[in-house]
Amino acid sequence: MQNFNFYNPTHIVFGKDRLGELDNLVPKNAKVLILFGGGSIKKFGTLDKVTKALKDRIIIEFGGIEPNPRFETLMKAVDIVKEKNIDFLLAVGGGSVIDGTKFINLAANYEGNDTADLLLNYSASKTVVKSIPIGTVLTLPATGSEMNSGAVISYNHGKFVVGSPLSFPTFSILDPTLTFTLPPSQVANGIVDTFIHVTEQYVTYPADGRFQDRTAEGILKTLIEISEQTINNPEDYDARANLVWSATMGLNGLIGSGVPQDWSTHMIGHELTAMFGIDHGKTLAILQPAIWKIRKEQKREKLLQYANRVWNITEGDDDYIIDSAINKTREFFEGLGIKTYLSDYGITADKIENVITALKKHGMTALSETRNLTPDICREILEIAL
Amino acid sequence: MQNFNFYNPTHIVFGKDRLGELDNLVPKNAKVLILFGGGSIKKFGTLDKVTKALKDRIIIEFGGIEPNPRFETLMKAVDIVKEKNIDFLLAVGGGSVIDGTKFINLAANYEGNDTADLLLNYSASKTVVKSIPIGTVLTLPATGSEMNSGAVISYNHGKFVVGSPLSFPTFSILDPTLTFTLPPSQVANGIVDTFIHVTEQYVTYPADGRFQDRTAEGILKTLIEISEQTINNPEDYDARANLVWSATMGLNGLIGSGVPQDWSTHMIGHELTAMFGIDHGKTLAILQPAIWKIRKEQKREKLLQYANRVWNITEGDDDYIIDSAINKTREFFEGLGIKTYLSDYGITADKIENVITALKKHGMTALSETRNLTPDICREILEIAL
Repeated sequence: MQNFNFYNPTHIVFGKDRLGELDNLVPKNAKVLILFGGGSIKKFGTLDKVTKALKDRIIIEFGGIEPNPRFETLMKAVDIVKEKNIDFLLAVGGGSVIDGTKFINLAANYEGNDTADLLLNYSASKTVVKSIPIGTVLTLPATGSEMNSGAVISYNHGKFVVGSPLSFPTFSILDPTLTFTLPPSQVANGIVDTFIHVTEQYVTYPADGRFQDRTAEGILKTLIEISEQTINNPEDYDARANLVWSATMGLNGLIGSGVPQDWSTHMIGHELTAMFGIDHGKTLAILQPAIWKIRKEQKREKLLQYANRVWNITEGDDDYIIDSAINKTREFFEGLGIKTYLSDYGITADKIENVITALKKHGMTALSETRNLTPDICREILEIAL
Repeated sequence: MQNFNFYNPTHIVFGKDRLGELDNLVPKNAKVLILFGGGSIKKFGTLDKVTKALKDRIIIEFGGIEPNPRFETLMKAVDIVKEKNIDFLLAVGGGSVIDGTKFINLAANYEGNDTADLLLNYSASKTVVKSIPIGTVLTLPATGSEMNSGAVISYNHGKFVVGSPLSFPTFSILDPTLTFTLPPSQVANGIVDTFIHVTEQYVTYPADGRFQDRTAEGILKTLIEISEQTINNPEDYDARANLVWSATMGLNGLIGSGVPQDWSTHMIGHELTAMFGIDHGKTLAILQPAIWKIRKEQKREKLLQYANRVWNITEGDDDYIIDSAINKTREFFEGLGIKTYLSDYGITADKIENVITALKKHGMTALSETRNLTPDICREILEIAL
């Protein structure tokens, strides 16, 4: 097992009918900026419940944070935070809203000249020493942002990772019933996102992290078990609760502690989203099977373990077992209604070189757990993903 | 899944050669009370390394915290904390030292007239609002105290549970190499303690907590896999690291979130330790198989799941499968060198009534996940444990 630090102070408030507890969770005299995305939290009454629970606190609303939240949009909220002396940020939404809120907090407290440096230079966020507390009310299980300190922000045709220990939400309310109204396609995207968060931390090389491996496998098996049920019967509480908790646990630092981590699927996927507008979850579903095929040797032992323990595939020679597990994974994604080839999204071979150029521009030239996934290997991956 | 809150702010510093980081983890101007047990941390050089890492901070030492730490001993440390204006408590040891340190913190900041009320009245600890930060350097993997807010303290021939959100360690250094010098019997006790922490939160009744169940099973399987290796080859780093991390994760709130919890094995076991001086881990090894036999109907579904998933027992009728899993569990404990019957410790049938009387005196009359394990049922359990 590798040395590691684990720290996660977010208070999770999980279950039915927990919104009323906002009155205890948010300081009494707080001036609250509520941040959200499109209109669904208005349409389904969540925003009303939130404002009611906050009683007579001063509340300002900031809506319109888009999927893949944009720097320019978020900077408008930063202005409000500064002008109005906001002292509590309440994100009500999915990963994009929560990520955006984390960035708003860092940007509002950043003392450098150019706020975009927070995105272009990962160490810039380390200079931020003040923080506004963040609370979240989760409405979409997918990114795990509700219990981690990271965020992904879109800027100038790229997606950039930012984060700081100051970015952990103070609390997150995870009420699975608030996710019942999600369209099936968003639930499916969230399942794939969670699945790949786990495989990025698990299908690498052996490091004898037994708790970590078994916990990762437990999340993957849970997703496989409950996905059809939670897509077809969105109001099945237990199925949805298991999805919500799996999504949170998949990216809160726990399963990646003390073991190697890959993240090449995410880094290449970010380029596909930035360039072609493909949903984040769908980019992962396209890339993961292709990466595993090309990186079979580097990942052989863990791919075998994945095949054996997650899919119960034990018969046949090792290559057959691994190929079967990759096929099973692709079938799982397709079964959720998510296409797994670039051509399904109208991406043709002539576009690949643009992706390679963007990866190089963004410094993504030595990816994966072994830091040897080069742009040339990325090209191979994209070619077999066509 | 049941509603739950999860909050755990302890910063884990895990791995080889991490003691030097104490200089960054403990505030620069802190006046530190180092708390420890017997002489082993002096004998093996850990105390020297700790004091060296703390550089020129003012340090006071308080040794002699015994296994099952006693109120009277701890109150001597409370006097020192108050007299010397200590502002950092550094526990260097196992669960007893860490539990004792948590109590010292609460007691030093308790404003009530009689500090023993903290033990006799569980809600008394909730009146404590101030806190001295606690750090820990773990030397014995077993209780999970390094990453939770609970403590068990001995007082007036009883063992009492105390705790508060203020009791979480700020940080815990978990260096598996610091545990290499432990005697095999203490390692074996720690393995059983961890095993039963997990079963108390897992072998109850089904609540569809899939992440929780699979994570619990992962810890149990890990313990079964590595126990022989880590007892026979104490310096096998990875085996010991897996034990240390399993022990921490077994009782940090994670696997018990959203699912029923039992704890009858612990509550009855505490009486056996207080009355007969049997090691905590050994009392659990005696009681768990007996409790499962007597409570087979209440626990039928989860016992079957335990048999199937942890021990891979799937052939035969349900009763055979469950009985086989109980036998396997007993054999596992015996294989660690831990005897599993009361008579092995010289306890005879005529002592049982004394245990029942003590349980009643301590209010332990409605135990288990279903709150219907009465003193009469305890009597049956102790009789078949003879």
